[in-house]
Amino acid sequence: MKDIKPFITLVGAGPGDAELITLKGIKAIREADVILYDALVNDELLEHAKPDCVKVYVGKRAERLSTSQDEINKLLVDYAMNYGHVVRLKGGDPFVFGRGGEELDYAHAHHIKTAVVPGISSSISLTGLQQIPLTYRHIAESFWVITGSKSDTQLSEDIQLAVKSTATVVILMGFAKLAEIASTYQREGKNTLPIAVIQNGSTNEERIVLGTIDTIVDQVRNAELGAPAIIVVGEVVAKHREFAAVMEQVEKKLLAV
Amino acid sequence: MKDIKPFITLVGAGPGDAELITLKGIKAIREADVILYDALVNDELLEHAKPDCVKVYVGKRAERLSTSQDEINKLLVDYAMNYGHVVRLKGGDPFVFGRGGEELDYAHAHHIKTAVVPGISSSISLTGLQQIPLTYRHIAESFWVITGSKSDTQLSEDIQLAVKSTATVVILMGFAKLAEIASTYQREGKNTLPIAVIQNGSTNEERIVLGTIDTIVDQVRNAELGAPAIIVVGEVVAKHREFAAVMEQVEKKLLAV
Repeated sequence: MKDIKPFITLVGAGPGDAELITLKGIKAIREADVILYDALVNDELLEHAKPDCVKVYVGKRAERLSTSQDEINKLLVDYAMNYGHVVRLKGGDPFVFGRGGEELDYAHAHHIKTAVVPGISSSISLTGLQQIPLTYRHIAESFWVITGSKSDTQLSEDIQLAVKSTATVVILMGFAKLAEIASTYQREGKNTLPIAVIQNGSTNEERIVLGTIDTIVDQVRNAELGAPAIIVVGEVVAKHREFAAVMEQVEKKLLAV
Repeated sequence: MKDIKPFITLVGAGPGDAELITLKGIKAIREADVILYDALVNDELLEHAKPDCVKVYVGKRAERLSTSQDEINKLLVDYAMNYGHVVRLKGGDPFVFGRGGEELDYAHAHHIKTAVVPGISSSISLTGLQQIPLTYRHIAESFWVITGSKSDTQLSEDIQLAVKSTATVVILMGFAKLAEIASTYQREGKNTLPIAVIQNGSTNEERIVLGTIDTIVDQVRNAELGAPAIIVVGEVVAKHREFAAVMEQVEKKLLAV
């Protein structure tokens, strides 16, 4: 009988592009006896696995017909006990709203050793790929990453503070609350602040809408953008090479109305 | 004569560990005619380059005996014009306080095409490697990344706002201002908030000190920690597996005084 050494590695799979995973991440996938993977993980990554690796889809999207976090925790530990090295392959980075911390806690409570391989988080990388600099001297010297979908489904109160700061604000899983987010900025008088919505970032289906707090809701509706998308708010968005041209178009349309 | 196609790719080299670069980053290094690299970039990454690739060190550290940003911008463009594909290899991610935006602006002003390959930022990954979850349901549902060393050398005013939030706060390049940062939290009454300082993260020389706002300055002095280091403040730091044991030691010493 095979000598089983239970071990769990949380691996960040990156934002979608199969080449935006780390060398260390690929190495973990190659060594895995079992891989538990999410909906937002690029399937191509699974091709690096051993032929006899067990691949288990535990996608959670909009919480429907999906595996619950409790079930995922249990699966991780069961597979580790019975198969050995389990790679938990998670979209982006395991700790950016990924519930990786809960998975570690559960594994440690069952005395299973763990390791972590960080991943490229969409919160940092999707702006970069669009050549929007997350920080820029004298314009934005910090950035704040917030979830639009808190555990209690409320918009995070941190957004109330964020609108007062000079930070570039990145909101993940906030697409459904775009109008509410825009209103929060409007109440702070930041009507003309640049904002971008990026859908399916880093993939072939990537789309971006550039605008201001006052115009973005209509623009996104007209462009028929949808989730998964990230929202980026801050002066740095105006650094996008098409921003000036887009705003010229938007103003023309406003005058034409 | 060779047909020169000027092109500049900003590549994030990751936090230090040579395996924490992306597949796409390695590909860019392999194709580069010239590589301009920083002090915090792992030298091993240069081994992936072509034999005739020109490798130029433009390290900036503490702004002494270093290449200025203006010079780097000019070098990027000159090399692109004369050699073709220049890879600008930057520690972490190119846009997390990396001045990558300025490099793009300069390249575009000279009509040179550009691309970006995101990198693993120390701001996200070093906590992860230490199994400190940057976010955790009901504990921290956002994180704020701030530079301790603003362009005007002042402590960022954003820290004043950050101390009022429930965000996990990550401060890069703030080691020299640790006492000032601790005072800011103390004025907000957050004396017992967990804090970690991680030096040389992701390398063989990695060291971490865990403590609270009230104890960290003494602990870091006793441990003789130094830059480069990141500072992480927030309840999630208490999730580190050694946190409870460390705090028990700290309290014993306090009682013994």
